[in-house]
Amino acid sequence: MPDFFAFACELSVAARRETLRDLSTTLGLENKNPGGPFDPVSNADRGAERAMRELIVEAFPDHGILGEEFDDRAGTSVYQWSLDPIDGTRSFISGLPTWTTLIALMENGHPIMGVIDAPYLDELYVGCLDSSWKEVAGARTSLRVSNVRELGEARLATTDPFLFDGDAAAAFKTLYGSVPITRFGHDAYAYARLASGTIDLVVECGLKPHDYHALIPVVRGATGVFGDWSGGTDFSAGQVIAAATRELYEAAVEIMRAAASSVPPPKDGD
Amino acid sequence: MPDFFAFACELSVAARRETLRDLSTTLGLENKNPGGPFDPVSNADRGAERAMRELIVEAFPDHGILGEEFDDRAGTSVYQWSLDPIDGTRSFISGLPTWTTLIALMENGHPIMGVIDAPYLDELYVGCLDSSWKEVAGARTSLRVSNVRELGEARLATTDPFLFDGDAAAAFKTLYGSVPITRFGHDAYAYARLASGTIDLVVECGLKPHDYHALIPVVRGATGVFGDWSGGTDFSAGQVIAAATRELYEAAVEIMRAAASSVPPPKDGD
Repeated sequence: MPDFFAFACELSVAARRETLRDLSTTLGLENKNPGGPFDPVSNADRGAERAMRELIVEAFPDHGILGEEFDDRAGTSVYQWSLDPIDGTRSFISGLPTWTTLIALMENGHPIMGVIDAPYLDELYVGCLDSSWKEVAGARTSLRVSNVRELGEARLATTDPFLFDGDAAAAFKTLYGSVPITRFGHDAYAYARLASGTIDLVVECGLKPHDYHALIPVVRGATGVFGDWSGGTDFSAGQVIAAATRELYEAAVEIMRAAASSVPPPKDGD
Repeated sequence: MPDFFAFACELSVAARRETLRDLSTTLGLENKNPGGPFDPVSNADRGAERAMRELIVEAFPDHGILGEEFDDRAGTSVYQWSLDPIDGTRSFISGLPTWTTLIALMENGHPIMGVIDAPYLDELYVGCLDSSWKEVAGARTSLRVSNVRELGEARLATTDPFLFDGDAAAAFKTLYGSVPITRFGHDAYAYARLASGTIDLVVECGLKPHDYHALIPVVRGATGVFGDWSGGTDFSAGQVIAAATRELYEAAVEIMRAAASSVPPPKDGD
Protein backbone atom coordinates (compact mmCIF):
# COMPACT_ATOMS: atom_id res chain seq x y z
CA MET A 1 0.00 0.00 0.00
CA PRO A 2 1.36 3.47 -0.88
CA ASP A 3 2.25 5.84 1.97
CA PHE A 4 -1.15 7.46 2.11
CA PHE A 5 -0.31 9.32 5.31
CA ALA A 6 2.63 11.14 3.72
CA PHE A 7 0.42 11.92 0.75
CA ALA A 8 -2.37 13.30 2.98
CA CYS A 9 0.24 15.57 4.58
CA GLU A 10 1.16 16.83 1.12
CA LEU A 11 -2.52 17.58 0.54
CA SER A 12 -2.77 19.52 3.79
CA VAL A 13 0.33 21.55 2.95
CA ALA A 14 -1.13 22.44 -0.45
CA ALA A 15 -4.43 23.44 1.18
CA ARG A 16 -2.67 25.55 3.82
CA ARG A 17 -0.90 27.50 1.09
CA GLU A 18 -4.29 28.61 -0.24
CA THR A 19 -6.14 29.14 3.03
CA LEU A 20 -3.42 30.99 4.91
CA ARG A 21 -2.75 33.29 1.95
CA ASP A 22 -6.40 34.26 1.71
CA LEU A 23 -6.70 34.72 5.45
CA SER A 24 -4.31 37.64 5.29
CA THR A 25 -6.07 39.38 2.40
CA THR A 26 -9.60 40.51 1.84
CA LEU A 27 -11.73 37.45 1.33
CA GLY A 28 -13.78 37.02 -1.77
CA LEU A 29 -17.15 36.14 -0.32
CA GLU A 30 -20.35 35.30 -2.06
CA ASN A 31 -23.58 33.66 -1.09
CA LYS A 32 -23.51 30.07 -2.32
CA ASN A 33 -27.25 29.90 -1.95
CA PRO A 34 -28.66 33.17 -3.36
CA GLY A 35 -32.07 34.02 -1.96
CA GLY A 36 -31.71 31.31 0.70
CA PRO A 37 -29.93 31.23 4.04
CA PHE A 38 -26.51 32.83 3.94
CA ASP A 39 -23.87 30.22 3.20
CA PRO A 40 -20.46 31.83 2.99
CA VAL A 41 -17.82 30.47 0.71
CA SER A 42 -14.48 32.00 0.07
CA ASN A 43 -11.86 31.91 -2.63
CA ALA A 44 -9.78 30.00 -0.12
CA ASP A 45 -12.35 27.21 0.02
CA ARG A 46 -12.29 26.67 -3.71
CA GLY A 47 -8.57 27.26 -4.08
CA ALA A 48 -7.71 24.74 -1.40
CA GLU A 49 -10.00 22.05 -2.78
CA ARG A 50 -8.69 22.61 -6.31
CA ALA A 51 -5.07 22.29 -5.12
CA MET A 52 -5.83 19.01 -3.32
CA ARG A 53 -7.76 17.60 -6.28
CA GLU A 54 -4.89 18.32 -8.67
CA LEU A 55 -2.44 16.41 -6.48
CA ILE A 56 -4.81 13.43 -6.12
CA VAL A 57 -5.55 13.21 -9.85
CA GLU A 58 -1.83 13.32 -10.61
CA ALA A 59 -0.75 10.76 -7.99
CA PHE A 60 -3.76 8.42 -8.03
CA PRO A 61 -5.75 8.92 -11.23
CA ASP A 62 -7.95 5.91 -10.43
CA HIS A 63 -9.08 7.20 -7.00
CA GLY A 64 -12.48 8.80 -6.54
CA ILE A 65 -12.95 12.27 -5.02
CA LEU A 66 -15.86 13.59 -2.95
CA GLY A 67 -15.48 17.31 -2.32
CA GLU A 68 -17.50 20.13 -0.88
CA GLU A 69 -16.98 22.72 -3.61
CA PHE A 70 -16.87 20.78 -6.89
CA ASP A 71 -18.61 17.80 -8.46
CA ASP A 72 -17.72 14.32 -7.29
CA ARG A 73 -15.18 12.44 -9.38
CA ALA A 74 -15.92 8.78 -9.89
CA GLY A 75 -12.94 6.45 -9.54
CA THR A 76 -12.21 2.89 -10.53
CA SER A 77 -10.22 1.95 -7.42
CA VAL A 78 -11.44 0.90 -3.98
CA TYR A 79 -10.07 4.19 -2.69
CA GLN A 80 -11.81 7.53 -2.58
CA TRP A 81 -10.81 10.88 -1.00
CA SER A 82 -13.34 12.96 0.90
CA LEU A 83 -12.36 16.64 1.17
CA ASP A 84 -13.64 19.63 3.10
CA PRO A 85 -11.23 22.46 2.29
CA ILE A 86 -12.45 24.74 5.10
CA ASP A 87 -14.64 23.29 7.81
CA GLY A 88 -15.80 26.28 9.84
CA THR A 89 -15.96 28.83 7.02
CA ARG A 90 -17.88 31.14 9.38
CA SER A 91 -14.98 31.10 11.82
CA PHE A 92 -12.51 31.60 8.98
CA ILE A 93 -14.20 34.77 7.74
CA SER A 94 -14.62 36.01 11.33
CA GLY A 95 -10.89 35.75 11.97
CA LEU A 96 -11.33 33.01 14.57
CA PRO A 97 -8.59 30.37 14.82
CA THR A 98 -10.30 26.97 14.92
CA TRP A 99 -11.35 26.39 11.30
CA THR A 100 -9.82 23.26 9.79
CA THR A 101 -9.17 21.37 6.57
CA LEU A 102 -10.62 17.85 6.56
CA ILE A 103 -9.17 15.03 4.48
CA ALA A 104 -10.36 11.43 4.62
CA LEU A 105 -9.26 8.36 2.71
CA MET A 106 -12.12 5.92 2.17
CA GLU A 107 -11.79 2.25 1.24
CA ASN A 108 -14.95 0.77 -0.26
CA GLY A 109 -16.91 3.63 1.25
CA HIS A 110 -15.46 3.39 4.77
CA PRO A 111 -13.06 6.05 6.08
CA ILE A 112 -9.76 4.36 6.99
CA MET A 113 -7.63 7.48 7.56
CA GLY A 114 -8.63 10.99 8.57
CA VAL A 115 -6.79 14.30 8.85
CA ILE A 116 -8.03 17.34 10.79
CA ASP A 117 -5.58 20.12 9.99
CA ALA A 118 -5.79 23.45 11.86
CA PRO A 119 -3.53 25.73 9.79
CA TYR A 120 -3.84 28.87 11.92
CA LEU A 121 -2.85 26.87 15.00
CA ASP A 122 -0.29 24.77 13.12
CA GLU A 123 -1.81 21.58 14.54
CA LEU A 124 -2.33 18.50 12.38
CA TYR A 125 -4.43 15.65 13.80
CA VAL A 126 -4.33 12.26 12.09
CA GLY A 127 -6.17 9.03 12.75
CA CYS A 128 -6.03 5.55 11.23
CA LEU A 129 -8.77 3.78 13.25
CA ASP A 130 -6.25 1.87 15.39
CA SER A 131 -4.18 4.90 16.39
CA SER A 132 -4.27 8.69 16.26
CA TRP A 133 -1.62 11.31 16.69
CA LYS A 134 -0.97 15.03 16.49
CA GLU A 135 1.86 16.68 14.60
CA VAL A 136 3.00 20.13 15.67
CA ALA A 137 6.15 21.63 14.21
CA GLY A 138 7.36 18.18 13.21
CA ALA A 139 6.87 16.62 16.67
CA ARG A 140 4.44 13.71 16.89
CA THR A 141 2.33 13.04 20.01
CA SER A 142 -0.06 10.11 20.23
CA LEU A 143 -3.66 10.93 21.09
CA ARG A 144 -5.99 9.34 23.57
CA VAL A 145 -9.44 10.41 24.74
CA SER A 146 -10.21 11.13 28.41
CA ASN A 147 -11.73 8.46 30.63
CA VAL A 148 -14.85 10.48 31.53
CA ARG A 149 -17.85 8.16 31.84
CA GLU A 150 -20.55 10.37 33.32
CA LEU A 151 -22.42 13.41 32.04
CA GLY A 152 -21.86 15.06 35.44
CA GLU A 153 -18.14 15.28 34.66
CA ALA A 154 -18.23 15.89 30.92
CA ARG A 155 -17.01 18.81 28.84
CA LEU A 156 -19.58 19.02 26.02
CA ALA A 157 -19.15 20.79 22.69
CA THR A 158 -21.40 21.69 19.79
CA THR A 159 -20.97 24.32 17.10
CA ASP A 160 -24.28 26.20 17.21
CA PRO A 161 -27.13 25.20 19.55
CA PHE A 162 -29.65 26.97 17.30
CA LEU A 163 -29.06 24.34 14.63
CA PHE A 164 -31.13 21.93 16.73
CA ASP A 165 -34.85 22.41 16.37
CA GLY A 166 -38.03 20.95 17.84
CA ASP A 167 -37.37 17.76 19.79
CA ALA A 168 -33.65 18.05 19.12
CA ALA A 169 -33.50 21.53 20.69
CA ALA A 170 -35.30 20.27 23.78
CA ALA A 171 -33.06 17.21 24.03
CA PHE A 172 -29.94 19.31 23.63
CA LYS A 173 -31.12 21.70 26.34
CA THR A 174 -31.47 18.68 28.66
CA LEU A 175 -27.96 17.56 27.77
CA TYR A 176 -26.62 21.10 28.35
CA GLY A 177 -28.24 21.04 31.81
CA SER A 178 -26.65 17.66 32.59
CA VAL A 179 -23.00 18.60 32.07
CA PRO A 180 -20.79 21.09 33.95
CA ILE A 181 -19.19 22.68 30.88
CA THR A 182 -20.49 23.32 27.37
CA ARG A 183 -18.42 25.05 24.71
CA PHE A 184 -19.76 26.28 21.38
CA GLY A 185 -18.30 27.30 18.07
CA HIS A 186 -15.47 24.97 17.12
CA ASP A 187 -16.75 22.79 14.26
CA ALA A 188 -14.41 19.85 13.53
CA TYR A 189 -11.74 21.18 15.91
CA ALA A 190 -13.95 20.03 18.81
CA TYR A 191 -13.44 16.42 17.65
CA ALA A 192 -9.67 16.98 17.53
CA ARG A 193 -9.84 18.10 21.16
CA LEU A 194 -12.03 15.10 22.00
CA ALA A 195 -9.32 12.85 20.54
CA SER A 196 -6.80 14.81 22.63
CA GLY A 197 -8.69 14.22 25.88
CA THR A 198 -9.66 17.82 26.69
CA ILE A 199 -13.29 17.63 25.48
CA ASP A 200 -15.34 14.57 26.42
CA LEU A 201 -18.49 14.75 24.31
CA VAL A 202 -19.54 16.33 21.00
CA VAL A 203 -23.15 16.29 19.79
CA GLU A 204 -24.14 17.70 16.40
CA CYS A 205 -26.75 17.55 13.68
CA GLY A 206 -26.81 18.52 10.04
CA LEU A 207 -23.37 17.09 9.23
CA LYS A 208 -22.70 16.15 5.63
CA PRO A 209 -20.39 13.28 4.64
CA HIS A 210 -17.41 15.58 3.99
CA ASP A 211 -18.00 17.05 7.49
CA TYR A 212 -17.72 13.73 9.33
CA HIS A 213 -15.68 11.29 7.21
CA ALA A 214 -12.31 12.54 8.48
CA LEU A 215 -13.47 12.70 12.09
CA ILE A 216 -14.23 8.98 12.37
CA PRO A 217 -10.67 7.56 12.14
CA VAL A 218 -9.30 10.38 14.34
CA VAL A 219 -11.82 9.82 17.15
CA ARG A 220 -11.80 6.00 16.97
CA GLY A 221 -8.01 5.87 16.63
CA ALA A 222 -7.82 7.74 19.96
CA THR A 223 -10.13 5.03 21.44
CA GLY A 224 -13.20 7.30 21.37
CA VAL A 225 -16.72 6.37 20.29
CA PHE A 226 -18.24 7.89 17.14
CA GLY A 227 -21.89 7.02 16.60
CA ASP A 228 -25.34 8.33 15.73
CA TRP A 229 -28.13 9.54 18.03
CA SER A 230 -29.78 6.10 18.16
CA GLY A 231 -26.82 4.14 19.41
CA GLY A 232 -25.81 2.94 15.93
CA THR A 233 -23.53 4.11 13.15
CA ASP A 234 -25.89 5.36 10.47
CA PHE A 235 -24.87 8.94 9.76
CA SER A 236 -27.20 9.50 6.80
CA ALA A 237 -29.32 11.88 8.92
CA GLY A 238 -26.23 13.93 9.81
CA GLN A 239 -26.70 13.29 13.54
CA VAL A 240 -23.48 12.54 15.39
CA ILE A 241 -22.41 11.84 18.96
CA ALA A 242 -18.69 11.47 19.66
CA ALA A 243 -17.68 10.51 23.16
CA ALA A 244 -14.60 9.63 25.16
CA THR A 245 -16.08 6.39 26.48
CA ARG A 246 -18.85 3.93 25.63
CA GLU A 247 -20.63 4.78 28.93
CA LEU A 248 -20.66 8.49 28.15
CA TYR A 249 -21.87 7.81 24.60
CA GLU A 250 -24.76 5.70 25.91
CA ALA A 251 -25.71 8.40 28.42
CA ALA A 252 -25.88 10.97 25.61
CA VAL A 253 -27.86 8.58 23.37
CA GLU A 254 -30.33 8.14 26.23
CA ILE A 255 -31.14 11.87 25.97
CA MET A 256 -30.80 12.48 22.21
CA ARG A 257 -32.52 9.27 21.01
CA ALA A 258 -36.00 10.85 21.32
CA ALA A 259 -34.96 13.35 18.64
CA ALA A 260 -33.16 10.88 16.38
CA SER A 261 -34.41 10.77 12.82
CA SER A 262 -36.24 7.65 11.91
CA VAL A 263 -33.58 5.51 10.35
CA PRO A 264 -33.16 1.86 9.38
CA PRO A 265 -31.84 -0.48 12.11
CA PRO A 266 -28.27 0.46 13.05
CA LYS A 267 -25.61 -0.87 10.70
CA ASP A 268 -22.03 -0.01 10.03
CA GLY A 269 -22.83 2.77 7.60
CA ASP A 270 -19.67 4.86 7.92
CA MET B 1 3.62 59.34 33.76
CA PRO B 2 5.43 55.99 34.05
CA ASP B 3 5.49 53.67 31.06
CA PHE B 4 2.35 51.80 32.01
CA PHE B 5 2.21 49.98 28.70
CA ALA B 6 5.63 48.38 29.21
CA PHE B 7 4.59 47.47 32.72
CA ALA B 8 1.33 45.90 31.55
CA CYS B 9 3.39 43.80 29.13
CA GLU B 10 5.50 42.62 32.07
CA LEU B 11 2.31 41.63 33.84
CA SER B 12 1.12 39.65 30.83
CA VAL B 13 4.46 37.84 30.57
CA ALA B 14 4.29 36.90 34.25
CA ALA B 15 0.72 35.65 33.80
CA ARG B 16 1.65 33.61 30.70
CA ARG B 17 4.36 31.83 32.66
CA GLU B 18 1.69 30.51 35.04
CA THR B 19 -1.10 29.81 32.56
CA LEU B 20 0.97 28.12 29.87
CA ARG B 21 2.75 25.92 32.41
CA ASP B 22 -0.55 24.71 33.83
CA LEU B 23 -2.03 24.17 30.39
CA SER B 24 0.49 21.42 29.72
CA THR B 25 -0.07 19.61 33.00
CA THR B 26 -3.13 18.19 34.67
CA LEU B 27 -5.19 21.09 35.89
CA GLY B 28 -6.13 21.37 39.53
CA LEU B 29 -9.82 22.02 39.31
CA GLU B 30 -12.31 22.66 42.03
CA ASN B 31 -15.80 24.06 42.21
CA LYS B 32 -15.57 27.66 43.41
CA ASN B 33 -19.23 27.52 44.29
CA PRO B 34 -19.82 24.18 46.09
CA GLY B 35 -23.42 23.03 45.87
CA GLY B 36 -24.16 25.72 43.30
CA PRO B 37 -23.62 25.87 39.56
CA PHE B 38 -20.24 24.56 38.47
CA ASP B 39 -17.72 27.39 38.32
CA PRO B 40 -14.34 26.06 37.35
CA VAL B 41 -11.20 27.64 38.66
CA SER B 42 -7.74 26.37 38.11
CA ASN B 43 -4.39 26.70 39.77
CA ALA B 44 -3.38 28.73 36.75
CA ASP B 45 -6.06 31.33 37.50
CA ARG B 46 -4.82 31.92 41.00
CA GLY B 47 -1.13 31.59 40.13
CA ALA B 48 -1.41 34.14 37.33
CA GLU B 49 -3.29 36.67 39.43
CA ARG B 50 -0.85 36.25 42.31
CA ALA B 51 2.12 36.82 39.97
CA MET B 52 0.59 40.01 38.57
CA ARG B 53 -0.34 41.32 42.03
CA GLU B 54 3.20 40.83 43.31
CA LEU B 55 4.63 42.87 40.44
CA ILE B 56 2.08 45.68 40.93
CA VAL B 57 2.61 45.90 44.70
CA GLU B 58 6.36 46.05 44.17
CA ALA B 59 6.33 48.66 41.38
CA PHE B 60 3.35 50.78 42.46
CA PRO B 61 2.57 50.19 46.13
CA ASP B 62 0.01 53.02 46.13
CA HIS B 63 -2.09 51.59 43.24
CA GLY B 64 -5.33 49.77 43.94
CA ILE B 65 -6.02 46.24 42.63
CA LEU B 66 -9.35 44.67 41.61
CA GLY B 67 -8.93 41.00 40.85
CA GLU B 68 -11.10 38.01 40.16
CA GLU B 69 -9.53 35.50 42.51
CA PHE B 70 -8.48 37.48 45.61
CA ASP B 71 -9.82 40.35 47.69
CA ASP B 72 -9.62 43.89 46.35
CA ARG B 73 -6.65 45.95 47.46
CA ALA B 74 -7.43 49.59 48.25
CA GLY B 75 -4.92 52.11 46.96
CA THR B 76 -4.15 55.74 47.68
CA SER B 77 -3.39 56.75 44.09
CA VAL B 78 -5.78 57.68 41.27
CA TYR B 79 -4.67 54.47 39.55
CA GLN B 80 -6.11 51.03 39.99
CA TRP B 81 -5.46 47.74 38.14
CA SER B 82 -8.32 45.45 37.16
CA LEU B 83 -7.22 41.85 36.53
CA ASP B 84 -8.85 38.74 35.10
CA PRO B 85 -6.11 36.10 35.03
CA ILE B 86 -8.04 33.71 32.79
CA ASP B 87 -11.10 34.96 30.97
CA GLY B 88 -12.63 31.88 29.41
CA THR B 89 -11.66 29.35 32.09
CA ARG B 90 -14.09 26.89 30.50
CA SER B 91 -12.18 27.11 27.21
CA PHE B 92 -8.87 26.81 29.06
CA ILE B 93 -9.83 23.55 30.74
CA SER B 94 -11.33 22.23 27.49
CA GLY B 95 -8.04 22.77 25.66
CA LEU B 96 -9.53 25.42 23.37
CA PRO B 97 -7.22 28.24 22.26
CA THR B 98 -9.12 31.52 22.77
CA TRP B 99 -8.93 32.08 26.55
CA THR B 100 -7.22 35.32 27.49
CA THR B 101 -5.68 37.28 30.33
CA LEU B 102 -7.30 40.70 30.86
CA ILE B 103 -5.44 43.65 32.38
CA ALA B 104 -6.87 47.16 32.69
CA LEU B 105 -5.43 50.31 34.15
CA MET B 106 -8.10 52.56 35.65
CA GLU B 107 -7.76 56.25 36.44
CA ASN B 108 -10.33 57.51 38.93
CA GLY B 109 -12.47 54.49 38.14
CA HIS B 110 -12.31 54.81 34.33
CA PRO B 111 -10.31 52.31 32.24
CA ILE B 112 -7.60 54.20 30.31
CA MET B 113 -5.58 51.24 29.05
CA GLY B 114 -6.58 47.67 28.38
CA VAL B 115 -4.72 44.49 27.46
CA ILE B 116 -6.30 41.34 26.02
CA ASP B 117 -3.54 38.76 25.92
CA ALA B 118 -4.12 35.41 24.19
CA PRO B 119 -1.13 33.32 25.36
CA TYR B 120 -1.91 30.14 23.43
CA LEU B 121 -2.15 32.16 20.21
CA ASP B 122 0.74 34.46 21.17
CA GLU B 123 -1.40 37.51 20.35
CA LEU B 124 -1.39 40.59 22.61
CA TYR B 125 -4.06 43.26 21.99
CA VAL B 126 -3.62 46.67 23.62
CA GLY B 127 -5.83 49.76 23.65
CA CYS B 128 -5.45 53.26 25.07
CA LEU B 129 -8.82 54.78 24.09
CA ASP B 130 -7.28 56.84 21.25
CA SER B 131 -5.44 53.95 19.58
CA SER B 132 -5.22 50.17 19.71
CA TRP B 133 -2.68 47.73 18.39
CA LYS B 134 -1.75 44.08 18.30
CA GLU B 135 1.68 42.67 19.12
CA VAL B 136 2.63 39.30 17.69
CA ALA B 137 6.20 38.04 18.02
CA GLY B 138 7.42 41.60 18.57
CA ALA B 139 5.69 43.06 15.50
CA ARG B 140 3.12 45.79 16.14
CA THR B 141 0.04 46.27 13.93
CA SER B 142 -2.49 49.01 14.55
CA LEU B 143 -6.10 47.91 14.94
CA ARG B 144 -9.25 49.29 13.41
CA VAL B 145 -12.79 47.98 13.43
CA SER B 146 -14.70 47.16 10.22
CA ASN B 147 -17.07 49.67 8.65
CA VAL B 148 -20.14 47.41 8.84
CA ARG B 149 -23.24 49.51 9.57
CA GLU B 150 -26.11 47.07 9.05
CA LEU B 151 -27.21 43.93 10.84
CA GLY B 152 -27.70 42.28 7.45
CA GLU B 153 -23.92 42.35 6.92
CA ALA B 154 -22.71 41.78 10.47
CA ARG B 155 -20.67 38.97 12.00
CA LEU B 156 -22.12 38.62 15.50
CA ALA B 157 -20.46 36.93 18.48
CA THR B 158 -21.56 35.90 21.96
CA THR B 159 -20.06 33.34 24.31
CA ASP B 160 -23.07 31.24 25.29
CA PRO B 161 -26.60 31.99 24.05
CA PHE B 162 -28.09 30.07 26.98
CA LEU B 163 -26.84 32.77 29.35
CA PHE B 164 -29.67 34.99 28.08
CA ASP B 165 -33.01 34.25 29.65
CA GLY B 166 -36.60 35.46 29.36
CA ASP B 167 -36.86 38.66 27.31
CA ALA B 168 -33.11 38.64 26.71
CA ALA B 169 -33.24 35.16 25.16
CA ALA B 170 -36.05 36.25 22.85
CA ALA B 171 -34.25 39.47 21.90
CA PHE B 172 -31.03 37.60 21.21
CA LYS B 173 -32.87 35.10 19.02
CA THR B 174 -34.21 38.05 16.99
CA LEU B 175 -30.69 39.43 16.66
CA TYR B 176 -29.37 35.99 15.65
CA GLY B 177 -32.03 35.90 12.92
CA SER B 178 -31.05 39.38 11.68
CA VAL B 179 -27.38 38.71 10.95
CA PRO B 180 -25.74 36.39 8.42
CA ILE B 181 -23.10 34.94 10.76
CA THR B 182 -23.11 34.25 14.50
CA ARG B 183 -20.16 32.71 16.29
CA PHE B 184 -20.22 31.41 19.86
CA GLY B 185 -17.68 30.57 22.49
CA HIS B 186 -14.86 33.11 22.46
CA ASP B 187 -15.27 35.23 25.62
CA ALA B 188 -13.03 38.35 25.54
CA TYR B 189 -11.23 37.19 22.41
CA ALA B 190 -14.35 38.13 20.42
CA TYR B 191 -13.74 41.79 21.37
CA ALA B 192 -10.12 41.51 20.23
CA ARG B 193 -11.41 40.33 16.86
CA LEU B 194 -13.98 43.15 16.82
CA ALA B 195 -11.10 45.61 17.31
CA SER B 196 -9.28 43.80 14.49
CA GLY B 197 -12.18 44.21 12.06
CA THR B 198 -13.10 40.54 11.59
CA ILE B 199 -16.12 40.49 13.93
CA ASP B 200 -18.60 43.37 13.77
CA LEU B 201 -20.84 42.98 16.81
CA VAL B 202 -20.60 41.37 20.26
CA VAL B 203 -23.60 41.16 22.60
CA GLU B 204 -23.29 39.75 26.11
CA CYS B 205 -24.85 39.72 29.56
CA GLY B 206 -23.61 38.79 33.00
CA LEU B 207 -20.22 40.49 32.63
CA LYS B 208 -18.45 41.53 35.80
CA PRO B 209 -16.16 44.57 36.00
CA HIS B 210 -12.97 42.50 35.57
CA ASP B 211 -14.60 40.95 32.48
CA TYR B 212 -15.19 44.27 30.67
CA HIS B 213 -12.73 46.87 32.01
CA ALA B 214 -9.89 45.85 29.69
CA LEU B 215 -12.19 45.56 26.67
CA ILE B 216 -13.27 49.21 26.68
CA PRO B 217 -9.95 50.88 25.74
CA VAL B 218 -9.18 48.16 23.18
CA VAL B 219 -12.55 48.50 21.39
CA ARG B 220 -12.73 52.30 21.59
CA GLY B 221 -9.07 52.73 20.64
CA ALA B 222 -9.86 50.82 17.43
CA THR B 223 -12.75 53.33 16.82
CA GLY B 224 -15.42 50.85 17.90
CA VAL B 225 -18.45 51.54 20.10
CA PHE B 226 -18.71 49.95 23.55
CA GLY B 227 -22.04 50.57 25.30
CA ASP B 228 -24.87 49.00 27.25
CA TRP B 229 -28.19 47.55 26.01
CA SER B 230 -30.03 50.86 26.47
CA GLY B 231 -27.81 53.04 24.32
CA GLY B 232 -25.78 54.33 27.28
CA THR B 233 -22.64 53.36 29.14
CA ASP B 234 -23.87 51.97 32.44
CA PHE B 235 -22.40 48.51 32.72
CA SER B 236 -23.56 47.81 36.27
CA ALA B 237 -26.09 45.26 34.96
CA GLY B 238 -23.32 43.43 33.07
CA GLN B 239 -25.06 43.97 29.71
CA VAL B 240 -22.71 44.94 26.90
CA ILE B 241 -22.94 45.68 23.18
CA ALA B 242 -19.71 46.31 21.30
CA ALA B 243 -20.01 47.30 17.66
CA ALA B 244 -17.84 48.36 14.76
CA THR B 245 -19.91 51.47 14.05
CA ARG B 246 -22.42 53.73 15.79
CA GLU B 247 -25.12 52.71 13.29
CA LEU B 248 -24.61 49.01 13.99
CA TYR B 249 -24.61 49.67 17.73
CA GLU B 250 -27.93 51.53 17.49
CA ALA B 251 -29.45 48.73 15.41
CA ALA B 252 -28.49 46.20 18.09
CA VAL B 253 -29.78 48.46 20.89
CA GLU B 254 -33.10 48.67 19.03
CA ILE B 255 -33.48 44.90 19.49
CA MET B 256 -31.87 44.37 22.91
CA ARG B 257 -33.34 47.44 24.66
CA ALA B 258 -36.57 45.61 25.48
CA ALA B 259 -34.53 43.24 27.65
CA ALA B 260 -32.26 45.87 29.21
CA SER B 261 -32.24 45.92 32.99
CA SER B 262 -33.90 48.91 34.49
CA VAL B 263 -31.01 51.27 35.15
CA PRO B 264 -30.58 54.95 35.94
CA PRO B 265 -30.42 57.34 32.95
CA PRO B 266 -27.31 56.63 30.86
CA LYS B 267 -24.14 58.18 32.19
CA ASP B 268 -20.47 57.56 31.58
CA GLY B 269 -20.26 54.74 34.08
CA ASP B 270 -17.16 52.97 32.80
